[in-house]
Amino acid sequence: MNLEMIESAAARLAGRARRTPLLSSPFLDALAGRRVLIKPECLQHTGSFKFRGGWAAVSALSESQRARGVITCSSGNHAQGVASAARAHGVPAVILMPSDAPALKIANTRALGAEVVLYDRARDDREAICARLKEERGLHFISAYDNAEVVAGQGSVGLEIAEQAAEAGVRRAEVLVPCGGGGLGAGVALALEARAPQMRVRTVEPEGFDDTARSLASGQIEANPRATGSICDAILTPAPGALTFPVLRRLAGPGLAVSDDEALRAMAAAFARLKIVAEPGGAVALAAALFRRQDLDGEALIVVITGGNVDGAVFARALERFGTGE
Amino acid sequence: MNLEMIESAAARLAGRARRTPLLSSPFLDALAGRRVLIKPECLQHTGSFKFRGGWAAVSALSESQRARGVITCSSGNHAQGVASAARAHGVPAVILMPSDAPALKIANTRALGAEVVLYDRARDDREAICARLKEERGLHFISAYDNAEVVAGQGSVGLEIAEQAAEAGVRRAEVLVPCGGGGLGAGVALALEARAPQMRVRTVEPEGFDDTARSLASGQIEANPRATGSICDAILTPAPGALTFPVLRRLAGPGLAVSDDEALRAMAAAFARLKIVAEPGGAVALAAALFRRQDLDGEALIVVITGGNVDGAVFARALERFGTGE
Repeated sequence: MNLEMIESAAARLAGRARRTPLLSSPFLDALAGRRVLIKPECLQHTGSFKFRGGWAAVSALSESQRARGVITCSSGNHAQGVASAARAHGVPAVILMPSDAPALKIANTRALGAEVVLYDRARDDREAICARLKEERGLHFISAYDNAEVVAGQGSVGLEIAEQAAEAGVRRAEVLVPCGGGGLGAGVALALEARAPQMRVRTVEPEGFDDTARSLASGQIEANPRATGSICDAILTPAPGALTFPVLRRLAGPGLAVSDDEALRAMAAAFARLKIVAEPGGAVALAAALFRRQDLDGEALIVVITGGNVDGAVFARALERFGTGE
Repeated sequence: MNLEMIESAAARLAGRARRTPLLSSPFLDALAGRRVLIKPECLQHTGSFKFRGGWAAVSALSESQRARGVITCSSGNHAQGVASAARAHGVPAVILMPSDAPALKIANTRALGAEVVLYDRARDDREAICARLKEERGLHFISAYDNAEVVAGQGSVGLEIAEQAAEAGVRRAEVLVPCGGGGLGAGVALALEARAPQMRVRTVEPEGFDDTARSLASGQIEANPRATGSICDAILTPAPGALTFPVLRRLAGPGLAVSDDEALRAMAAAFARLKIVAEPGGAVALAAALFRRQDLDGEALIVVITGGNVDGAVFARALERFGTGE
């Protein structure tokens, strides 16, 4: 993975992915004690940045791979990104999703034309089901993060941040990204290394699922003790990726973690101050910007809100509990 | 008012107002039975397009007018737009707001540095209070719609629609705009007349407050029988403006009206499909796109979502009642 791959993915995404704007609010600046620029990837097609990686991976397939189809495992955002990209390319897509994924994510993935196969997180062996389907049908597996084309596609977020932040007069900043397997963090870090070397990626995870923060601290891949137990469903991956972690170890600052309630509070703040819909896992970087002031450096923060695929009932409860997030 | 004034306002707004993107969703296209492009002005500074008109008006003031200050009456979005623009220009601002305006709008207007004067819609004479303050302090009055600079500022939305729709391959469309006093509709209609003559503005109002639709039908200004009674607080104006109505009569198609429940349903659809926050009055044009198919012409619609300044409790109830809006 390198800048050339990211630029090539960005070229294939031009006119396909949305160039999401940078948003801001004086109210959030005041809460964070710094200037905060928000990259709202919840406004991306399919409601999350995962559209970029899905499109980058599907558009890089050979003709014979396209004819046979693709398979992936995802709790929902990568699922929708791959499903949407596959449909646009006329490629069959099989998606393994946990049966407890948000209903909206399962319904949307099906509506985007993918074949959804549900499994039980506690009882079923996901890897075995995936391997069997891959074998039987000759499908091409697209990992949600340990795939160079996927990481390159996510890196297009970093190219846009470098350009848009410079237009806004910001050249030095910490760039906060929600982190599951590390595909977005690694892609953005590589793009910034080349295009905005005074910016540094900081990963943000849910407390209790801070495998990347602990891995960055120890220098080697550490796993999470649990697979479930946070509302931040989009970023509960077992451990940093084999492809992504070396990049993060080289380029990212110390990892951050926030509580579920802080994520919900950040969702309420994004509702009140930015008029955008963030899902819990998509809001953790904003939560760190607002509630981890002492762990952050410098005068400006750039915050990626990665997705907005949240069921209405969860969102309503966040608003009822936390008002405007302040 | 003419294209030159709109272009001049747009030039003063460049780098100040956000150029909001055009969004879309295959799910909304399916519901509407047409291609739908959404202009989300809820993502504008202060959470509504009113920032544009406020900025255009304040930036056009003379030095002596700036020194004395401005006054306006508004239920909240124009209030915040004027307050924000006035603060940026160092101009004192007095805003008359009804005491039953949404709490978020009152709090934000104060936080933006304006002096807020509350009045009781039923008991007080707003015009008399406004005239007295204007006289006593030598303030410049900025009407929310019957002000040429305000209309010119709102017209910048139309310039952007013409450009962005052409980039998306759309040159012929009905352009649905929420309508209170008609400032946005008139400004957009003038811009489109010059830049996208195959597009036509259609105003959308709450049922029971369809003064513009009735005025367009009769050819003369008709008033609403009531001043309150819809959740669409942002667009409950007594009658079309003296400045705006002649423009709409010349350029707009027949007016449309939707129910409060349809507006709430459209808010839920915007939440689920676009990941944006629309307030009730801001969502009426989307509601017309989704629920007035038979009253609309052509293969493409452009829908302006005018604002997102809604209290969390109202938004939560919309989600609980209407799910994804379908």
